[in-house]
Amino acid sequence: MVRSNPQRRAALVDAAIEVLAQEGARGLTFRSVDTEAGVPPGTASNYFANRDELLTQAGARVYERLVPDDETIARQRAAGRDRVAYAGLMRELVGRVSGFRSGYLALLELRLEATRRPELRKILTERVRADLDANVTYHLGSGLPGDATAVQLLYLALNWLIVEQLTLPDVLSPAERERLVTAAVERIVTE
Amino acid sequence: MVRSNPQRRAALVDAAIEVLAQEGARGLTFRSVDTEAGVPPGTASNYFANRDELLTQAGARVYERLVPDDETIARQRAAGRDRVAYAGLMRELVGRVSGFRSGYLALLELRLEATRRPELRKILTERVRADLDANVTYHLGSGLPGDATAVQLLYLALNWLIVEQLTLPDVLSPAERERLVTAAVERIVTE
Repeated sequence: MVRSNPQRRAALVDAAIEVLAQEGARGLTFRSVDTEAGVPPGTASNYFANRDELLTQAGARVYERLVPDDETIARQRAAGRDRVAYAGLMRELVGRVSGFRSGYLALLELRLEATRRPELRKILTERVRADLDANVTYHLGSGLPGDATAVQLLYLALNWLIVEQLTLPDVLSPAERERLVTAAVERIVTE
Repeated sequence: MVRSNPQRRAALVDAAIEVLAQEGARGLTFRSVDTEAGVPPGTASNYFANRDELLTQAGARVYERLVPDDETIARQRAAGRDRVAYAGLMRELVGRVSGFRSGYLALLELRLEATRRPELRKILTERVRADLDANVTYHLGSGLPGDATAVQLLYLALNWLIVEQLTLPDVLSPAERERLVTAAVERIVTE
């Protein structure tokens, strides 16, 4: 029987994110998640039908934890509607996403694992596409400058900037990264 | 004693790339490389002092194999020097890099492994930075439009486009990806 204590379940999924980031997808086992969560051996296997379910829920949970809080949303809405303000929002976004280091690294591990697991690939594909489309829709209603293509190009450039920062942080200095975010908005977003 | 047959060594490094792409960094062992290369057990351990040396050489070899051949370079030099020609070159570049699927996936595995291995991170950082700087230098002497910032922004956007294509190929359709490469050049490259 699958257990249903929601706090315990969330703690196990969060532990799975840490294991993915630290040990890679192949290091993720029920046992390693139990150890990371500090719960008795056998706990994770009571909450998840199999390892694929744990992988899928870890991916979904990263997206959930990346949703901005109410304060951030309010501050974003109060910001200006020109490209200078937009660049500020994008620098904040990069800081927020890269600040959840284990979450972003876990998503990269899941992407690589998806090349080996068609079921995981299908679920991640739906999730990433829905997220990208939601970003476009939100943007077009926000009053900020820039079309759907601009949102997609910024998605591409900023994702790799975060990969660079989290995997090889000395390739670009913090000042270079900040300059590139600003330049990306200035060039990609046509007013 | 470390063996020195160069063909055999190159075949082992190529096998390591395939193992990295298929099994992930944690799946890379001397034994798995011997199996992939179809050589007797114990061969790889005669050619490489340790696993780190094999990881490092696999990374270097991916870059080596991505260098365009003479025919490609000649065709690139014969192309026009406007943004339309530049976009064509970038579409060709994306096709060439993503066409070496196992090599690119191996580099992503190495980046994630570098978060756990400082020595690997140091070597990869030098390699990636040197490659980025060489791209800028080559570009500025090529007569193509666009400054150093444009080269760096295209590097960011096109890398994630390739990640998307190789890990979750159905998030963007081939037509969308092609359109985004063209749009990236049109917007990022200022004439």
